[in-house]
Amino acid sequence: MTKQKGPLVIVGGAEDKKNEMTILREFVRLSGGTHSKIVVMTVATKLPIEVGAEYVDVFEQIGVADVRTFDVSSREDANRASACKAIEEATGVFFTGGDQLRITTLLGGTSMDAALQTGLEQGLVLAGTSAGASMMSSTMIVEGVAETNPRMGIVNMAPGMEFLDGVVIDQHFAQRGRLGRLLSAVAQYPHHLGLGIDEDTAIIVRGTTFEVIGRGAVSVVDAGALLYSNLQELRHNDALALGGVQLHVLPAGYRFSLRERALLTGQDSRSGNV
Amino acid sequence: MTKQKGPLVIVGGAEDKKNEMTILREFVRLSGGTHSKIVVMTVATKLPIEVGAEYVDVFEQIGVADVRTFDVSSREDANRASACKAIEEATGVFFTGGDQLRITTLLGGTSMDAALQTGLEQGLVLAGTSAGASMMSSTMIVEGVAETNPRMGIVNMAPGMEFLDGVVIDQHFAQRGRLGRLLSAVAQYPHHLGLGIDEDTAIIVRGTTFEVIGRGAVSVVDAGALLYSNLQELRHNDALALGGVQLHVLPAGYRFSLRERALLTGQDSRSGNV
Repeated sequence: MTKQKGPLVIVGGAEDKKNEMTILREFVRLSGGTHSKIVVMTVATKLPIEVGAEYVDVFEQIGVADVRTFDVSSREDANRASACKAIEEATGVFFTGGDQLRITTLLGGTSMDAALQTGLEQGLVLAGTSAGASMMSSTMIVEGVAETNPRMGIVNMAPGMEFLDGVVIDQHFAQRGRLGRLLSAVAQYPHHLGLGIDEDTAIIVRGTTFEVIGRGAVSVVDAGALLYSNLQELRHNDALALGGVQLHVLPAGYRFSLRERALLTGQDSRSGNV
Repeated sequence: MTKQKGPLVIVGGAEDKKNEMTILREFVRLSGGTHSKIVVMTVATKLPIEVGAEYVDVFEQIGVADVRTFDVSSREDANRASACKAIEEATGVFFTGGDQLRITTLLGGTSMDAALQTGLEQGLVLAGTSAGASMMSSTMIVEGVAETNPRMGIVNMAPGMEFLDGVVIDQHFAQRGRLGRLLSAVAQYPHHLGLGIDEDTAIIVRGTTFEVIGRGAVSVVDAGALLYSNLQELRHNDALALGGVQLHVLPAGYRFSLRERALLTGQDSRSGNV
């Protein structure tokens, strides 16, 4: 599926930054604990100073001495030698929320993009929340209508950064009523598993397996099992009919095989890789 | 499954009362058109005069000459001879929204309840919206937490009026992010199919088959297909893990067999009974 070696930490947005901080602490632990070197990537947001400062504060609170922000507001920024150097020296990189199209258009194909891919192959821990979660896949949701039944054209898709193949990721999932838009996305691309990640919830991906951490759950929507759809006959805004979608709901501690498209239970469900 | 002969019209709330009025017109058509005799049951609401008057206006607009409201604010009301008479003379009965527990506690076991069951066996058209939809089943959702992942105890269930067996009905489904609470309900009662009905959307049930009408869709959540759940180990508010739930999404014109637990496609999908 992917050549990534370093774990991915994909967060459904609104992760706790004040109390237990389960998700951000786990990201730090994976990155090397207090000795980790964290880069906070603020490329997705138009408020890089405010958003960056908040994460620097939090990571310092957790005990990381070496934490810095790196902002990219033009493709030139992402092609500078300093950009690659920042990634090469980091043990963990964290993408904040904002607009996922800013990430793909400002970072895509730059030398910083290449450095991230290389870093990942060498064990770099790569994390992203909200927009920073959506961009992780090869096909991403750019925007869509919430709190509706699945309809043709209610979700705009675009190529993502390809850190993780075979999935489409949606965030703020239960909190913003996004089942309809995720179903609309995977009905069109049934090869892709839909991952609906709740707020303050994350998946840790290692190879083709992920484990859930945090307060909510991850809903896996598998349209590969579709027995029926009316997709061929539809025009813009027409309602989708879907028969036989598989749905799995995984809270913290549960693991899922992206290759087997199945929840892992029993002995293999809570430890190590498959 | 059920002995009902008259069709049930089960509405997900907020049905259009100003423009096309697709659902309310279909209810009137099934009840006999302009010659139908409609009773609006306001038992669920604490504002029976306002709510009743609104529906009387709408049904008169549609062309029904014989429309009246019947309110039940005590069990005595529902045991009066006039209560049975109202039902016996009606060709269509419409339950408004409000609180589904008012329906079951004020109406349950009264002679009006019996008259409704008898009427249904004889072809009476029975409709309900929102609370009036929830009460239709043998087990109903009383209240629950929305916009959350499925958790133990987030949904309160109670016996319904048993007009339709084998299902649990939720309304305002996509609009209020109720996937989590419907999953919580059916995970505990996997024999029951979960029907999540969107706003301005309805099912017309005949025997063990239903057809969808209206603007949104009906999501059928089938936990009978569950491959895994952690239900046995859970305490209050713990998160559910569910593997292998089946999900079907049906917009207007699509039909579903409650007995086969499957979407009906092809020739049998849009006409007559199965």
